[in-house]
Amino acid sequence: MTEYPSALLEKAVSEFSRLPGVGRKTALRFCLHLLKLPQKEAEELGQSLIRMRTEIKHCNRCHNLSDALLCPVCSDPRRDSGTLCIVESVRDVLAIENTTQYRGLYHVLGGVISPMEGIGPADLTLVHLEERAKHNDIQEFIMALPATLEGDTTSFYIYKRLSSLTSATFSTIARGIAIGDELEYTDEITLGRSILNRMPYQIKT
Amino acid sequence: MTEYPSALLEKAVSEFSRLPGVGRKTALRFCLHLLKLPQKEAEELGQSLIRMRTEIKHCNRCHNLSDALLCPVCSDPRRDSGTLCIVESVRDVLAIENTTQYRGLYHVLGGVISPMEGIGPADLTLVHLEERAKHNDIQEFIMALPATLEGDTTSFYIYKRLSSLTSATFSTIARGIAIGDELEYTDEITLGRSILNRMPYQIKT
Repeated sequence: MTEYPSALLEKAVSEFSRLPGVGRKTALRFCLHLLKLPQKEAEELGQSLIRMRTEIKHCNRCHNLSDALLCPVCSDPRRDSGTLCIVESVRDVLAIENTTQYRGLYHVLGGVISPMEGIGPADLTLVHLEERAKHNDIQEFIMALPATLEGDTTSFYIYKRLSSLTSATFSTIARGIAIGDELEYTDEITLGRSILNRMPYQIKT
Repeated sequence: MTEYPSALLEKAVSEFSRLPGVGRKTALRFCLHLLKLPQKEAEELGQSLIRMRTEIKHCNRCHNLSDALLCPVCSDPRRDSGTLCIVESVRDVLAIENTTQYRGLYHVLGGVISPMEGIGPADLTLVHLEERAKHNDIQEFIMALPATLEGDTTSFYIYKRLSSLTSATFSTIARGIAIGDELEYTDEITLGRSILNRMPYQIKT
């Protein structure tokens, strides 16, 4: 391991290398880059991280990231408040928003049930989701959780817990062959399920 | 481009994506990671960057990074002060120190002469290097500059400028086939030079 000529540099490299996918070499590259930048710009980077971490809020309604009590999605009157998409994380909200195909609201669970990682139902925003199911006029809950054992377990658990509270329908995002995939390279489980869950043939107009 | 639900997040992503090799996707990953960390740890990352940028110094003697007036290399009495290795940047000092093969001192130029990038001799720490050549008891200057046109030009320029001021010898780090390289995949210039600059055959004991 390299010994750095400065304890300040050493500290900054250690801190940077806590970021995901950043090793000490990349962290050093970041630091030497910052040292070349004008002091004001380097300070701005540091300050903006601190401000983000200390001032950012979670939406009171859907637990998305937000600067205000309600996030931009929840406070947009043009969104369809009758449809609620249940996702694991803020990252998933961003991914779905990026498709521009969804006009309903979200509920961010903050994780999925995973006994292996010690995450139980009480660690998720489920009590709040129940309240929304009871009080709001939601017609459809869309489960958009990961296609993993944990995701499926969580979908099932949520269905069990909510279905008695609401007359809404429950759906899950389609799973199957990704656009552009070759059948021969698709894994067996995905391919098998995509045959079982085949859909009526539609010609897009 | 994704629209983020928070201006604070947007700002932090923009700042992170100024780092070398970091795009907006990686920057977002960094931000979401920071948001999961305890607030204290995220603040510590930000603060350590700011402190590094504002408080770090350059060694008064060799221009290496340092927390004090003299860097750890210059202030180490066990180093051989008769040998001076001239390098482009702090990164090169770290690389050479990492080999543990060098026990002399350094001089960091802060760049190489590059008319294309508008870097002339006045932008480097050459005046200071001249002073060191005049006043110190240096027996050997080792040019450890990049094996590029700019590096070679800079070595030549430094030699011209220093050789009248000192009776020291000038050397350059060996260039040739890297350890582990196959001859057939080595570029012609490197291979040609390594034949011209062949060395006496030595058996390491």
